Amino acid sequence: MTSPKSLSRSPPSTVSASVIVSSLLTVQTPGRGFTDLTAETAKFVEESGACEGAVTLFIRHTSASLTIQENADPTVLHDLATALDRLAPENAGWRHDTEGPDDMPAHIKTMLTATSLQIPVLQGELALGTWQAIYLIEHRRGPHHREIVLQFAGSTA
Amino acid sequence: MTSPKSLSRSPPSTVSASVIVSSLLTVQTPGRGFTDLTAETAKFVEESGACEGAVTLFIRHTSASLTIQENADPTVLHDLATALDRLAPENAGWRHDTEGPDDMPAHIKTMLTATSLQIPVLQGELALGTWQAIYLIEHRRGPHHREIVLQFAGSTA
Amino acid sequence: MTSPKSLSRSPPSTVSASVIVSSLLTVQTPGRGFTDLTAETAKFVEESGACEGAVTLFIRHTSASLTIQENADPTVLHDLATALDRLAPENAGWRHDTEGPDDMPAHIKTMLTATSLQIPVLQGELALGTWQAIYLIEHRRGPHHREIVLQFAGSTA
Repeated sequence: MTSPKSLSRSPPSTVSASVIVSSLLTVQTPGRGFTDLTAETAKFVEESGACEGAVTLFIRHTSASLTIQENADPTVLHDLATALDRLAPENAGWRHDTEGPDDMPAHIKTMLTATSLQIPVLQGELALGTWQAIYLIEHRRGPHHREIVLQFAGSTA
Repeated sequence: MTSPKSLSRSPPSTVSASVIVSSLLTVQTPGRGFTDLTAETAKFVEESGACEGAVTLFIRHTSASLTIQENADPTVLHDLATALDRLAPENAGWRHDTEGPDDMPAHIKTMLTATSLQIPVLQGELALGTWQAIYLIEHRRGPHHREIVLQFAGSTA
Repeated sequence: MTSPKSLSRSPPSTVSASVIVSSLLTVQTPGRGFTDLTAETAKFVEESGACEGAVTLFIRHTSASLTIQENADPTVLHDLATALDRLAPENAGWRHDTEGPDDMPAHIKTMLTATSLQIPVLQGELALGTWQAIYLIEHRRGPHHREIVLQFAGSTA
């Protein structure tokens, strides 16, 4: 493990927490793959007048999920999908197959990624790193209607 | 990736954030498997007088974890357990086996699922989707005493 | 699933939510492995005058991540790294290898663990269990400069 000397931290900055802002985001997915929600989340933050606090994203489904991943090279998203397919293959003796062979792998992939995410907002901006984007991952083969609750908690300008 | 046209979002709705409500939930697990915490979490939200905000669940252990998964067909939970067993098998050359062959797999399964979850509360109700339930996953073979911190942050009626 | 009788819950305790405190933690990692952030997070909580609420940790990278895991036996961390290597092996036909064979596995390991964590604060203390520590996991071979946003939302003394 790293020694404490390798850590540094800025002095804590404090503001009054004052509001909760909520919105429902609806996404029509084209089937398996990634949908970038970063711009829409940033728009929500801006419309909310958010200053300091955090945005929560919560996806209301168990066969689609959320992740924060690299936004630069599209082969990263391709390889992430391959990795999930290897970790949760179709036709691997699953009992639950009511909706087809992609049904149970979709639930497993959801369990291995995120249903809720929290992203700090600092000085009115999402505190994402340079290479980070927020993605919805559709795990089912067919197009689906997906709902995500966006919520900002913190201070407004 | 999906084009922006496939997204729609409701106008942000704002309330004053006013309270933090905390409670400790204690669960006696019967050994490996899933315990549904949804009703108890909903009861906590109701007792708190919660209106708009979010509930955080935090499990104070490293060999049991949390997930949000399908509440309809019990074979989903069976298959999720099978998937975790395949991803973190017993007797796979782990060094840490102080408490038996299910010890290290339990830590790995915890790392691959969630220690903290956040669920928005809208108009006094958990904003879960129709098929979503909140589960504690016990990864150890034997019964265990598990503690979960429940915390609501937001506005009250 | 467990019957409802196995659950017990303390009465909800309510305080006024009043502040958001933010700080940026910078960590110089020595390459692959775990860095314990628990003491630094506790220091942040203390400096913030935090009383009741929750701390969010958010890592601003896609090839390093966060987890809460056992702090007692170092072989746990060794085995967790082995498990991640098995789930996301190098030289497994990934398309994305711009920065070498450890590049794509690092993204997959990040997806399978956490980018954001939430830990309740009760009576001025992180509500971690006895065996829980907060770790940054560096997934790249070489040393990296990593940034983590720390944020407390809640009441102060």
